[in-house]
Amino acid sequence: MEKNEALKFEVIKKDKKTGARLSVLHLPHGDVEAPVFMPVGTQATVKSMTPEELKNEVKTSLILSNTYHLYLRPGHELIKEAGGLHKFMNWDRNILTDSGGFQVFSLSDMRKITEEGVEFKSHIDGSKHFISPEKSMEIQNFLGSDIMMAFDECAPYGASRKYVEDSMNMTTRWAKRCKDYHKNTENQALFGIVQGGFYKDLRKQSAEDLIKLDFPGYAIGGISVGEPKEEFLDILRYTAPLLPEDKPRYLMGVGTPDYLIEAVIAGVDMCDCVLPTRMARNGSALTHYGKLNMLNACHEHDFTTLDKDCDCYTCKNYTRAYIRHLFKTQEILGARLLSIHNLRFLVKLMEDVRQAIRDDCLLEFRDSFYKKYGYED
Amino acid sequence: MEKNEALKFEVIKKDKKTGARLSVLHLPHGDVEAPVFMPVGTQATVKSMTPEELKNEVKTSLILSNTYHLYLRPGHELIKEAGGLHKFMNWDRNILTDSGGFQVFSLSDMRKITEEGVEFKSHIDGSKHFISPEKSMEIQNFLGSDIMMAFDECAPYGASRKYVEDSMNMTTRWAKRCKDYHKNTENQALFGIVQGGFYKDLRKQSAEDLIKLDFPGYAIGGISVGEPKEEFLDILRYTAPLLPEDKPRYLMGVGTPDYLIEAVIAGVDMCDCVLPTRMARNGSALTHYGKLNMLNACHEHDFTTLDKDCDCYTCKNYTRAYIRHLFKTQEILGARLLSIHNLRFLVKLMEDVRQAIRDDCLLEFRDSFYKKYGYED
Repeated sequence: MEKNEALKFEVIKKDKKTGARLSVLHLPHGDVEAPVFMPVGTQATVKSMTPEELKNEVKTSLILSNTYHLYLRPGHELIKEAGGLHKFMNWDRNILTDSGGFQVFSLSDMRKITEEGVEFKSHIDGSKHFISPEKSMEIQNFLGSDIMMAFDECAPYGASRKYVEDSMNMTTRWAKRCKDYHKNTENQALFGIVQGGFYKDLRKQSAEDLIKLDFPGYAIGGISVGEPKEEFLDILRYTAPLLPEDKPRYLMGVGTPDYLIEAVIAGVDMCDCVLPTRMARNGSALTHYGKLNMLNACHEHDFTTLDKDCDCYTCKNYTRAYIRHLFKTQEILGARLLSIHNLRFLVKLMEDVRQAIRDDCLLEFRDSFYKKYGYED
Repeated sequence: MEKNEALKFEVIKKDKKTGARLSVLHLPHGDVEAPVFMPVGTQATVKSMTPEELKNEVKTSLILSNTYHLYLRPGHELIKEAGGLHKFMNWDRNILTDSGGFQVFSLSDMRKITEEGVEFKSHIDGSKHFISPEKSMEIQNFLGSDIMMAFDECAPYGASRKYVEDSMNMTTRWAKRCKDYHKNTENQALFGIVQGGFYKDLRKQSAEDLIKLDFPGYAIGGISVGEPKEEFLDILRYTAPLLPEDKPRYLMGVGTPDYLIEAVIAGVDMCDCVLPTRMARNGSALTHYGKLNMLNACHEHDFTTLDKDCDCYTCKNYTRAYIRHLFKTQEILGARLLSIHNLRFLVKLMEDVRQAIRDDCLLEFRDSFYKKYGYED
């Protein structure tokens, strides 16, 4: 390396049976132990949470924020003016921003994709916008995130081989343009994103082409997009080992406990998902004994805690009966208490996974977790 | 007193010019300095807040909760089963519950008032209910609040003299029935409520009749119900001095800074209002320099704090631009940050009022506060 780079990746230990990695990402806003689950703060806030709660209750040191949303509101210029995203949202630990690509394709109206970039209409007010790889870099540079993602197209599940192949090749060309544009590598690490849908040869080609571009980290995009679990696992287990041993591997948009555990076993270091906070706002709790719908009548007179194996603020202080009351009466505190719990649940799951790697018992940990949780497989 | 009563009231000092009182209410869940503003936790939660935030950020030790709402959801039997309201909501400081009367009259449908009590339909599901003075006591006994209110009728603003007089006399008879029913006086102090609308002779009679019943504290009900400010002040200043010097005086439903200050000057010790939390959820902030609507465009690029004279968590950590962004994007954290600020603002106002009483300069404090805030009078 010619100069000081934003990310230094250190593999501490591997699980003997699976090869799953325990590692540390040394980043501008502190060290992050991996495997790690990243809470999502779409609009410069992890929904319902303060930064202090993320630090002290959830115990997280890396969150994700969405370039597409921040570009539309409040705008990346305003965030730059505020001194960057960390300062704007009062978060002094690390932030990863996505490229905006996924949301442009999944949320906006009237997309027109060309080699140059994507024209789209805002899902908020219908206004027209254009994001190119260079524009995505500019936005993420203005936001000042610690890890940035290259602008990619995530081909929809079920797309033809021809579509996926063309899209994957364009994503590689876009990745090159992102790397050429991005100069602030001392403060912001840029990851490439492997695409290729559910075609293994395309995944292989995508990985090889991106590795040639030498990114400090690599993501796996375009899986966990609605496919059956076997297909997910098949592509995950094929793709992860294609990526360099000495760089972090990030599986995008994954957040159920079983997908997280399987991802780590496959060699993944980082995951993110809106699932824990979205479930929380709908009154659903993740627990070691399966999912709970807090609106169910069975909780009405239940004065026990949500999850007796959880160490979070909610589980230490409140009963199921009270949490149910908060959801029945649509009180904001209900969403807050379940958000803290669900986020802590997944962050703690990754802490336990790291301990299992330390102890060389990741498969045993998985089996016992699945049994308690009630998973079939 | 024959036995240990729930409330011991101690006047510490009076402001020399106004006679406004600095006092302490010794209550089962700790001491409360007065004049005091009580945050409202209608449904066993002060909207959007945790108990820790109420203690550590807002710095409050007495909140109000609503009997009508808790009776309907989750039900007072369930709260009794939970070990009482304090335990149910995880709040170990003091709680005052209202009688349910005001909400029965303002929220429910199809009310039928008789000497026996009030029949009404729930505003939630239309189910039929009946609350008598005895029932209100039973509910509040089950809730286990530190201060209970006698069941009263709050006559609507503009009611005829005949209506107000009959209503006031019935409220006195109901107060007697409440006192006769309530046995748990060691743990719960029962306050009477002076009614009489905007007729001074009726106010006088109501006060005299209730004083004969010897309650440990008295409330002024039925003002701040939509009347012009001069009428409010006239009845407030007439009624407060009618009440015993050695008992706390509680003005119900008042929460604008000027009404709070005028109430204290008139001799009032306690106030409550949903205003700070309701304003917060609508994006309005109370500040020393007047009200702010955070949705206004003028805050878009404003990287200063909400209120430079405020010591709250929100003012210490966030900019107006960020708070505006949270409201524009309808993020829960916006309501949280303004709820903390608005509640702290009124609690701190009462702290400043207490200091002014200590220093014998309450009128000077009022004038300087009004000038900064931008009040005309």
